[in-house]
Amino acid sequence: MKFERKINYYETDAMGIVHHSNYIRFLEEARCDLLEYVGLPYSKIEEEGLMIPVLEVNCKYKHPARFNDVILTDVHIEEMKGVKMVVKYTITNKKTGDLILEGQTKHCFTDMNLKPIALQKARPDMFEKFQVKH
Amino acid sequence: MKFERKINYYETDAMGIVHHSNYIRFLEEARCDLLEYVGLPYSKIEEEGLMIPVLEVNCKYKHPARFNDVILTDVHIEEMKGVKMVVKYTITNKKTGDLILEGQTKHCFTDMNLKPIALQKARPDMFEKFQVKH
Amino acid sequence: MKFERKINYYETDAMGIVHHSNYIRFLEEARCDLLEYVGLPYSKIEEEGLMIPVLEVNCKYKHPARFNDVILTDVHIEEMKGVKMVVKYTITNKKTGDLILEGQTKHCFTDMNLKPIALQKARPDMFEKFQVKH
Amino acid sequence: MKFERKINYYETDAMGIVHHSNYIRFLEEARCDLLEYVGLPYSKIEEEGLMIPVLEVNCKYKHPARFNDVILTDVHIEEMKGVKMVVKYTITNKKTGDLILEGQTKHCFTDMNLKPIALQKARPDMFEKFQVKH
Repeated sequence: MKFERKINYYETDAMGIVHHSNYIRFLEEARCDLLEYVGLPYSKIEEEGLMIPVLEVNCKYKHPARFNDVILTDVHIEEMKGVKMVVKYTITNKKTGDLILEGQTKHCFTDMNLKPIALQKARPDMFEKFQVKH
Repeated sequence: MKFERKINYYETDAMGIVHHSNYIRFLEEARCDLLEYVGLPYSKIEEEGLMIPVLEVNCKYKHPARFNDVILTDVHIEEMKGVKMVVKYTITNKKTGDLILEGQTKHCFTDMNLKPIALQKARPDMFEKFQVKH
Repeated sequence: MKFERKINYYETDAMGIVHHSNYIRFLEEARCDLLEYVGLPYSKIEEEGLMIPVLEVNCKYKHPARFNDVILTDVHIEEMKGVKMVVKYTITNKKTGDLILEGQTKHCFTDMNLKPIALQKARPDMFEKFQVKH
Repeated sequence: MKFERKINYYETDAMGIVHHSNYIRFLEEARCDLLEYVGLPYSKIEEEGLMIPVLEVNCKYKHPARFNDVILTDVHIEEMKGVKMVVKYTITNKKTGDLILEGQTKHCFTDMNLKPIALQKARPDMFEKFQVKH
């Protein structure tokens, strides 16, 4: 699925482009949107006593985005096993079509004390939702 | 007391200067330093089941700071009554002496559910520490 | 006019609420939206060789916002004289109607070297746009 | 070389730990410190008409850091060819010794229009500085 958003002024840096750390936040926004889409908004996941911390982030910066640019983040779950989840992202400039970033994040599911949980066994009802086409 | 720190690249914006929202964070840094100085580090305050949320922020921006500038934040408790605390700040450029910002924050003391607490009555031992010269 | 947006996870802090510095950024978002609405998107203002730095920020925090909350920022230009502009904001929780924040920012118009400019004289065409009802 | 800093409150999120995007900023801080150490502070690099944008970021999150933790970032240049630079990082908790993060960033050298430059040919004087032991 695709997530659209505009670049804010406070997300730029002195180079006049989006600071590279902010893309990690845009990935989180898209991931949360995806979770909501499959019926598991992150706020509900926390209510259920679960968290999905980030284990790994990989980003390739291809083209800068600037203030007021509209970006499209294409996001999908690449892999989903009981304990781990891999999410992939492609960010493009809506107007020009330029590829801005290719990214990937790895996650695990944990309880509120950050102890890993095998979702498929512990919560098959939640695990199933991640199989929804998106 | 004075708190010194350097401006990071990610704190600048496309104007080439520090984004104005970041100064609010610098004030927090200085305030935390002050709390530590009087013997009440914020991490300890939280352990004691208290929080000090911000009720009000007022900032006057006088001169921009830029990447790599070293700034000095002069911070002191202006007023301290049972429920409320007013903290004042002056940020200057260490090298040039230019006045960068004049700020003030108002706070209250609360329990972990954000319910206000009269510190002087509830925790005179903690209240006393705020009287330390700084 | 009103500006709507959702709270992102990365905008919360260890208190479980939005960090107070982030509201300053939400005000900027609403202000940029307002500028776009009156026909002067900030990106165009920069193209014209002008900037609108922030001179003053005042915020009263009334009620915390949390992850996934939808907030409404009501924004309008309170005062607009040749050199200065005052903008007022009220942020509410869309669902509960709770008042979250009352804010005000003061600005001036400058050239790219941050030298103040009397907009009404220098650029009456731009000044006029700020009179648009919003 | 090692770079030390304390975790600020505004760098935490609702999980009570440092938001993962902020580590990307800590890497930048350490990298800037390294550049200063070898005699090429980033502010001077910009004065010379050069920039060092980020091409790639890879982070493995091993253990969370929390408010007030002191972290040590070990940073070194892993590879340095004419056009590209690879920097490696290890972040540990100063007190407990816990490994917090392993990271790597890739960069190129560009002019102010983001056009790549072969540093070794174009600026051998600058290229040489990166050979300094650190």
